[in-house]
Amino acid sequence: MPVTTIEWLNGKVRMIDQTKLPEELVYLDIEDVEVLAEGIKSLRVRGAPAIGIAGAFGLVLGIQNFEGNDKEAFLRELNRIADYLNATRPTAVNLSWALNRMKKVAQENATLGVEKIKERLLQEALKIWEEDREICRRIGKHGAKLIKNGSHVLTHCNTGALATADYGTALGVVFAANEEGKKVNVYADETRPLLQGARLNVWELMNEGIDVTLITDNTAAFVMQQEKVDCVIVGADRIAANGDTANKIGTYSVAVLAEKHGIPFYVAAPYSTIDFNIKKGADIPIEERAAEEVTEGFGKRTAPQNAKVYSPAFDITPHELISAIITEEGVIEPPFEINLKKSARNQNS
Amino acid sequence: MPVTTIEWLNGKVRMIDQTKLPEELVYLDIEDVEVLAEGIKSLRVRGAPAIGIAGAFGLVLGIQNFEGNDKEAFLRELNRIADYLNATRPTAVNLSWALNRMKKVAQENATLGVEKIKERLLQEALKIWEEDREICRRIGKHGAKLIKNGSHVLTHCNTGALATADYGTALGVVFAANEEGKKVNVYADETRPLLQGARLNVWELMNEGIDVTLITDNTAAFVMQQEKVDCVIVGADRIAANGDTANKIGTYSVAVLAEKHGIPFYVAAPYSTIDFNIKKGADIPIEERAAEEVTEGFGKRTAPQNAKVYSPAFDITPHELISAIITEEGVIEPPFEINLKKSARNQNS
Repeated sequence: MPVTTIEWLNGKVRMIDQTKLPEELVYLDIEDVEVLAEGIKSLRVRGAPAIGIAGAFGLVLGIQNFEGNDKEAFLRELNRIADYLNATRPTAVNLSWALNRMKKVAQENATLGVEKIKERLLQEALKIWEEDREICRRIGKHGAKLIKNGSHVLTHCNTGALATADYGTALGVVFAANEEGKKVNVYADETRPLLQGARLNVWELMNEGIDVTLITDNTAAFVMQQEKVDCVIVGADRIAANGDTANKIGTYSVAVLAEKHGIPFYVAAPYSTIDFNIKKGADIPIEERAAEEVTEGFGKRTAPQNAKVYSPAFDITPHELISAIITEEGVIEPPFEINLKKSARNQNS
Repeated sequence: MPVTTIEWLNGKVRMIDQTKLPEELVYLDIEDVEVLAEGIKSLRVRGAPAIGIAGAFGLVLGIQNFEGNDKEAFLRELNRIADYLNATRPTAVNLSWALNRMKKVAQENATLGVEKIKERLLQEALKIWEEDREICRRIGKHGAKLIKNGSHVLTHCNTGALATADYGTALGVVFAANEEGKKVNVYADETRPLLQGARLNVWELMNEGIDVTLITDNTAAFVMQQEKVDCVIVGADRIAANGDTANKIGTYSVAVLAEKHGIPFYVAAPYSTIDFNIKKGADIPIEERAAEEVTEGFGKRTAPQNAKVYSPAFDITPHELISAIITEEGVIEPPFEINLKKSARNQNS
């Protein structure tokens, strides 16, 4: 059973503080949107789908204390809070996707009273959460077809239960294959700077009794050279219309290495991660993180004072390096420019 | 002026404890071979050339308290200590190279008395140290020709003054170009697990006033994709007769990335790093390091208890990915199988 990373409980957001893992499993009960926004910013909750859910719940928290029945003021406040939440992480499209969906619900119900609109917003946030659970399961089911019994899968960053409302995207594929009775062995890149692979993927896989070997990011090429990796599966924070994929820094590196060694490279993500407004990867905004995450991330300074640091949180993997994109709609193969849209038609039909 | 990483001073080995950098610059004065061996093993002194020097000095420490004039017993003790030191790090050839050179001196002077042989051994160790200083300068001079004014150089691991008796191998090339008045900008991979790039390269470059930007290993591919890197220069722990190169884990990854982006990839190392007894890279023994260096390297546990870890200290870069090998004999270009030996003839002549 996957852990419940985020949920709505007794009028509050209950979520795991992922910065405390793997040493402690701490749940936060949050009732202020400011506390939630800080939690997104400092990665107490992270992973593109989970951030989307956090954003939707955050909007509910933010407007729940709005008093009176001035609908115009209410909608202005709603937009202000949505913008505030949206600014916490610029790269993952799921956040703006969820917030836009929430705003649309408010507009569609503008004829109702403020309290009724609040109710509808909570219903919508819970729907986004529930849908993500379903999406995880469907991504897992589709992706598991690509995993052979006895496979060795390499992962980068965390893409499991801690990144979603259920058992994950890329890691969900591993969990689904495991549930189908396949033996899967995972090499987990530790994923500097914040070590989500070491701290979170390894923790989730060990919890489920799946064989996992932790490696430094530097070791990925060497295990591929030794022919120990059968495929790579990563998540995505935003996918452009042509298939170019923004994901955790180092993903592009792994994709180049996979190409060099003839290893299939899969991206697993909810269909909502595809941003048809963005034509190509170069147009995706890339968040830069603070130098301290690199120079003193783990209790000890590991670079000189005042060292200049470049720390992008994400990179762009060009679509040519991607073997297939696994979504809840199925396994989408190249050419992505055409096939991503085709799946959109499936989804809308 | 580079720092003096290791030297012989008043009958002791004085060396920097590199595990304390960049926070503290601590010098150790060592008179016991056991303390020195622990220092090599736990990377208080590291870098292939510096390890060779440490081994030679260590042998002097180990035999200096031998009493009496039983030459057979003396030579037996010498061999025992050499084997003991040689076992501390299996991959770098410089260690066995220096120890063998010391043993040969003892044999060549076997007609002398024990005290005289001890004197010759100290002279030889000092000669290895002095030669390394000269070698650094010559590598730097040859390599600097490859560096254009305004270049951006990517480095992996530490290959500067802290790895040698003078200003280094790969980093020495940067220092030499800088001394020639060229503006050089460095991207320093932090180099997990032990972060020699972040802790040591950045420290050395900042000391010399050279522009350096620290990046996580995961970021190397992304800066290359953005066309911010003009060449890569790395060191080597052992080079096979065909040019295959063992160096710090992650080097092979950087080499694949450089190839993908059409960026020249240079190896800089003393000629003694070439092991003509080893035909190809796959025959080089690869040291595995303890899991704790990955799971709790910096004061805080960053992976679950009992996580399985694979942590090779080195990897092998196949010769096809290497643009040139820079030694004190000059810049050696492919085909290495032929040209490395040719340079051997130069050296012997």
